Amino acid sequence: MKLNKLGEFGIIKRIYQKSKDKNVLVGIGDDAAVLKIGKKLAVITTDTLVEGDHFNLSYFTPEQIGMKAIEINVSDIVSMGATPKYALVSLALQKNMNVKFIDNLYKGMRKAASKYGVEIIGGNLTHAKQIIIDVDVIGFVNKQNLCLRSSAKPGDFILVSGDLGASTAGLNLFLKKNKGHDYVKKKHLEPKANPHKIKSFLKYINAMEDVSDGLASEIQHICEQSNVGAIIYADNIPIRDETRKAAKAVNKNALDYALYGGEDFELVFTVNEKNLNKVKGYLIGEITKNRDIKIYQKGKEKLLKKHGYDHFA
Amino acid sequence: MKLNKLGEFGIIKRIYQKSKDKNVLVGIGDDAAVLKIGKKLAVITTDTLVEGDHFNLSYFTPEQIGMKAIEINVSDIVSMGATPKYALVSLALQKNMNVKFIDNLYKGMRKAASKYGVEIIGGNLTHAKQIIIDVDVIGFVNKQNLCLRSSAKPGDFILVSGDLGASTAGLNLFLKKNKGHDYVKKKHLEPKANPHKIKSFLKYINAMEDVSDGLASEIQHICEQSNVGAIIYADNIPIRDETRKAAKAVNKNALDYALYGGEDFELVFTVNEKNLNKVKGYLIGEITKNRDIKIYQKGKEKLLKKHGYDHFA
Repeated sequence: MKLNKLGEFGIIKRIYQKSKDKNVLVGIGDDAAVLKIGKKLAVITTDTLVEGDHFNLSYFTPEQIGMKAIEINVSDIVSMGATPKYALVSLALQKNMNVKFIDNLYKGMRKAASKYGVEIIGGNLTHAKQIIIDVDVIGFVNKQNLCLRSSAKPGDFILVSGDLGASTAGLNLFLKKNKGHDYVKKKHLEPKANPHKIKSFLKYINAMEDVSDGLASEIQHICEQSNVGAIIYADNIPIRDETRKAAKAVNKNALDYALYGGEDFELVFTVNEKNLNKVKGYLIGEITKNRDIKIYQKGKEKLLKKHGYDHFA
Repeated sequence: MKLNKLGEFGIIKRIYQKSKDKNVLVGIGDDAAVLKIGKKLAVITTDTLVEGDHFNLSYFTPEQIGMKAIEINVSDIVSMGATPKYALVSLALQKNMNVKFIDNLYKGMRKAASKYGVEIIGGNLTHAKQIIIDVDVIGFVNKQNLCLRSSAKPGDFILVSGDLGASTAGLNLFLKKNKGHDYVKKKHLEPKANPHKIKSFLKYINAMEDVSDGLASEIQHICEQSNVGAIIYADNIPIRDETRKAAKAVNKNALDYALYGGEDFELVFTVNEKNLNKVKGYLIGEITKNRDIKIYQKGKEKLLKKHGYDHFA
């Protein structure tokens, strides 16, 4: 069987093994691993940007690529309820590239890292046919703030921290070489992690994940790992007018971008009803005991079949 | 200026920044970063294997690739005097690859990891044109065992833990499609980290590094970071007969493989004269106050000009 038949989800299931180490609080399957080191809880994530897949030199500047490499990893740490602290950078570059590329890449990485108090403390350097940037970020978390994919409870409300679909809208305009639509294009070129949007009420969040592969995919992860289902109120999903206009310009549906696109890096989280007044966000669904994931739109309910972005589909 | 003009060494110098964080004991520039986390010292490394550069599917099995990915990172942790504990695996694969590839790759990774008590606790999965395997390994170290590149002292003896040049000999035979020479070929296909060779006398080692890019390159790193020089006794460098024969078969010099080849993963370390009887290894040189690096061979002394393997040269 080929990898594209199995899909990303299937591959991860195939390689999954439960840890037997009592210091591994979270292993394969969440946004980051959580380790008990002495009295501290360390959170570690790794994410790879591949040229032509996660960025394209025809519309990304090297500085923007550097910023993105850090932001997406910081986002994984933030989605665990943790605070990022250190980064390691593994670069594969082409031999004939200009030194300016690496200077500007590092400028972007350091610019993004310093916003979050993150320091680049090491890495690796090699050459390849494609540019590959693998970043690891290490952070720390207080146990009461830890937000796992597996902590959603039936009856929880589902919220998102901001508008969705804009990054995918931007990407599609770049691919079709459409002019204008600066809001969505910037959302694609300069994604940001969003720790400030959830920091003040972390202790009231049950499950959390960052929206990197589309809302449908993230809610599915939470449901799988929490052994629950969900109902998504599609009409409540925050989508900006700019995103709707950009989708329309290429004959696409902005809701599809929000559900099945990716790289928004907003946070999707679940909260018990009694804590709803203590958090901020857009209420877009509910966790159910029944394990189906349903979408309710314009008075009609249907089963979620499609997933989010799959790197192998 | 192009990256291949600057070279690997020059690129690293260009991106280097000294850490201001008192919990970062070692940052960019050593085999791994060292972080103080509570009362523990964590050691973190990252290394990337790129298809066609670090391995080739025409002579590596997927299981051997998996083993190599773990061994080379374990070696970086071992060369700090530390014990490896956890691994994260970031994979970029081609969509049309067979599922068996990933099964066997993980089989190899888990086989190598379990030898050292290392557990794979997370990672990332994406697609690319080339297969790229980025592994991070996290370990722990007692402060008195920490072996840095910067800890060599004038008068120290330089030792290596085992024979050199075999992996490069094996690679060259594969490239020339020569038959036979199983010892050196296996050394290339199945490199091993060597913690058992130095574990019992770690506290007597000053500086240490693993031989991944050739002995000349590693000694140069130690000298640069310790502000010292060295004299290498070329005739003392342990090279097996099998390696000499393999080099001869392709009209190459086995000593060049040892000095300027790579991927032996033996350990090169420095020891004060008074501790020489407490360690095991092949004595191949001395650290000098004078900052030149000299090679002494067959009664003649010359200055080391060539470096080890450079990914960008």
